[in-house]
Formats: sequence, structure tokens, C-alpha cells
Amino acid sequence: MPSPVQIIPIAGLPEIRQDDNLGALIIDAVHRQGEALEDGDVLVVTQKAVSKAEGRLVDLASVTPSPLAIQIASEHQRDPRHTEVVLRESKRIVRMDRGVIIAETRHGFRCANAGVDASNVGGKECVALLPEDSDASARRIRAHILKSLSIDLAVIISDTFGRPWREGAANAAIGAAGINPLLDYRGQEDPNGYELRTTTIAIADELASAAELVMGKLDRVPVALIKGYPYPRGDTGIGVLIRPPERDLFR
Amino acid sequence: MPSPVQIIPIAGLPEIRQDDNLGALIIDAVHRQGEALEDGDVLVVTQKAVSKAEGRLVDLASVTPSPLAIQIASEHQRDPRHTEVVLRESKRIVRMDRGVIIAETRHGFRCANAGVDASNVGGKECVALLPEDSDASARRIRAHILKSLSIDLAVIISDTFGRPWREGAANAAIGAAGINPLLDYRGQEDPNGYELRTTTIAIADELASAAELVMGKLDRVPVALIKGYPYPRGDTGIGVLIRPPERDLFR
Repeated sequence: MPSPVQIIPIAGLPEIRQDDNLGALIIDAVHRQGEALEDGDVLVVTQKAVSKAEGRLVDLASVTPSPLAIQIASEHQRDPRHTEVVLRESKRIVRMDRGVIIAETRHGFRCANAGVDASNVGGKECVALLPEDSDASARRIRAHILKSLSIDLAVIISDTFGRPWREGAANAAIGAAGINPLLDYRGQEDPNGYELRTTTIAIADELASAAELVMGKLDRVPVALIKGYPYPRGDTGIGVLIRPPERDLFR
Repeated sequence: MPSPVQIIPIAGLPEIRQDDNLGALIIDAVHRQGEALEDGDVLVVTQKAVSKAEGRLVDLASVTPSPLAIQIASEHQRDPRHTEVVLRESKRIVRMDRGVIIAETRHGFRCANAGVDASNVGGKECVALLPEDSDASARRIRAHILKSLSIDLAVIISDTFGRPWREGAANAAIGAAGINPLLDYRGQEDPNGYELRTTTIAIADELASAAELVMGKLDRVPVALIKGYPYPRGDTGIGVLIRPPERDLFR
């Protein structure tokens, strides 16, 4: 019988600046809140906090849009400088239609605007890019906590993605350390002796979604602490959640 | 500052049979576990439990596959009777490729095999269909608890769906009562005064995903009780999560 899972919002982090040590800031905020980090916890950290700490902000005043960006922007009432940054962050355009650009990023994520986001960034004329390597971002936070406190926990970096077919966005995982993002039931049997057909569950995405419930968009909650979830340890990184082209029916 | 959210697995329900009163079984199981239902709780109930209670099981021995089902099944090493049921449950085929059938159900859900599922159903030769009207299923459970205990809570029916672009399945909401499945931030401003662009969050899907963390696939946990999440009350049903064709870039 599984045990209850608790999702604790971690607020009280300062405004994140470039080169901040996110691991140290999180430890401080957790302790100030009277909570404790423990072996087996999961920390979910928003992409926005990570991107700020890693200096992944672009001042739109510094961006010269290409003719293609200008053309796309004019057809869709977008800022051509923002569109230019989106194109630079894209490895492949999945769809460009009805004002929406869904792109595949260099990491392999398929998401609106290649993850380039203007909301919640200090200053109206800035955009935030996804972390260069969000698994590495997760590993750095995890390693700092392991070194400082000798506590072995998992770290997930989350972002808010739209989904085909469903209205509303939901949080998904874009980086992971210390956890295998996929829980694999292959070959196991259900209570009736029938082999399970749904073989793998994307637990890192489910943990990111669960964390969003305490993060909200208007509160300053860049971190959620999840206790009581017995995740499979691993260091595959988030790549195992990215469907390869040969299995992708929605290119 | 948001408060912590707790996700409690509810086990100890009996094997569900047709015409069982799920609301009553859930109340009993919650109390036996020493937990209390409270105003503002969210109950997430698996589709499988609901489908069993509503008699949505089909004995494959009773199914005569059509020539089309036989042809598809032979090309993809499937059981033609199972394929026949999938076709009957489909309003539209989204993709049929590489052994996978992704269909739009009569409700509007896009999912593998139109939600027809063979795992975890008593007897190897049965399949379970989605509930006829999963909002009505949720409303019945909610109404029973409201009437029996005068407790006003939300009910979500969940199922495990694959997703385009991402490996691994995740739980999504297929029915809702007492809760607005979408949280709407439109027109609100972030802490820097910038209007938020991600306008709506599919909280019902995030709650379903969070619940899956305590459900597992091999344990008999058909219900999760979520406490501490201040959801927007509403009775729109799950339809607001279904993207209409004119906004669907992945038909």
C-alpha cells in the first residue's frame, strides 16, 4: 500500500539573479520555512528560476530580427524580436499556424515558442530561454545539497507546456537528476495475472504537474518539495521522456 | 502563500462489481483507513473502477469483428475482436500506424484504442470501455457524498493516456464534478506587472497526474484523496479541456 505524498510550496526565495547558487538558496528557504530536506525527497524547480540563475535572459533591445522573423511576426501580430529569438532556439518547426509556433528545441522538447517566455521576467523587454542543459541544472542543485547536507534527493526542472488536443497548459519535466523519469511496468502482471499493456509512466511529468498545484503563476513559489514518493533512482536524465522521430506520429 | 497539498491513497475498496454505489464504497474505505472527507477535498477515481461499476465491460467472446477490424488486426498483430471494439468506440481515427490506433472517442478524448483497455479487468477475455458520460459518473459520486455526509467536494475521473512527443503515459482527467477543470489567469499580471501569456492551466489533468503517484498500476488503489488544494468551484464538466477542431493543429 503506497503512502501519502505531500507537496510543499517553498516560497521566500529572493529574486533570482545570474550566478546565484540555486541549491544554496533552496536550502535556506526550506529551513526558513521550518521544513527539512530528507533522503528520498523530490525538489521541483521552475525553469524560470533556473534560467534566471543561469543568465538565460535576452534583452529584446539587443535582437535584430531576420527578414523571416519580421514576416512571420507581421502575419501573426507578434513582436519580430521575440519571433527571432524563438527561431534561434528552434531545431525544427513542428507547426506554425494561427499565431502559434510549436517548435522542437535543441534538447528535443516540442513546445510553444521553443520555450521562450516573456512572462514573470524582470523588465518587460526581456525574454527567458530554456536552460542550455536542464539535466545539468538539476544535477548541480542535487550535487550542492548532497555535498552540503549529505542528503540524497531528486531534482526535477519543470516548465509549463501546452498539449495537443487538450485545452490548458500543464507542467512537464525538462530536466532531472537522481530519479529515473520513467517508471517501467513492462513484464509485470496486474492483480488478475494479466500482463500490463501500459508499460511506462512518465512520473517526472506527473511530479512536475503535482508541483504546479502549489506553485501557481502569480505567487512567488519557484520550488516545490515533494515528500513520500518512492521514486526509482537513476541518472538517465530527461532524454528518456523524449519520443524519438521514428516513434513520433505527430511530426 | 499556497498551503501544502496532500495526496492520500485510498485502498481497501472491494473488487468493484456492476451497479455498485461507488460513492458509498469510497466513504466506507476512507473511514476504514481512519481518514476524513472534508469540504474542499478532491477525490480522483480511476476510469477502471467507474467502468466496472457502470457495467462497461465487454466479453470478447461476444464480439464479431468486422472485415475492417480483421484486416487492421492482421496487419498489426492485434486481437481482431479488441480492434472491433476500438472501432465501435471511435468517432474518428486520428492516427493508425505502427500498431497504434489513436482515436477520438465520442466524448472528444484523443487517446490510444479509444480508451478500450484490457489490463486489470477480471478475466483475460474482457475489455473495459470508457464510461458513457464520465462527468455524470463524477457527479453521481459527488452527489452521494453531498447527500450522505453534507460534504461538498470535487470528483475527478482519471485515465492513463499516452501523449504525442513524450514517452511514457500520464494520468489525465476524463470527468469532473464540483470543480472547474481549467484555472484561468487571463488578464492577471505577474509580480513584475507583465500580463501573463500562459492563460489557462488544466488543473484537473494536474490533479489526475498527482493522484497517479499514489495509485500505481499493480496496487489496488482506485481512489486518491487530495487535501489542501483550493480549486475553483464549477460544474462545466470536462468538455472545457477538449480542444475544438478549429484550434487543433494535430488532427
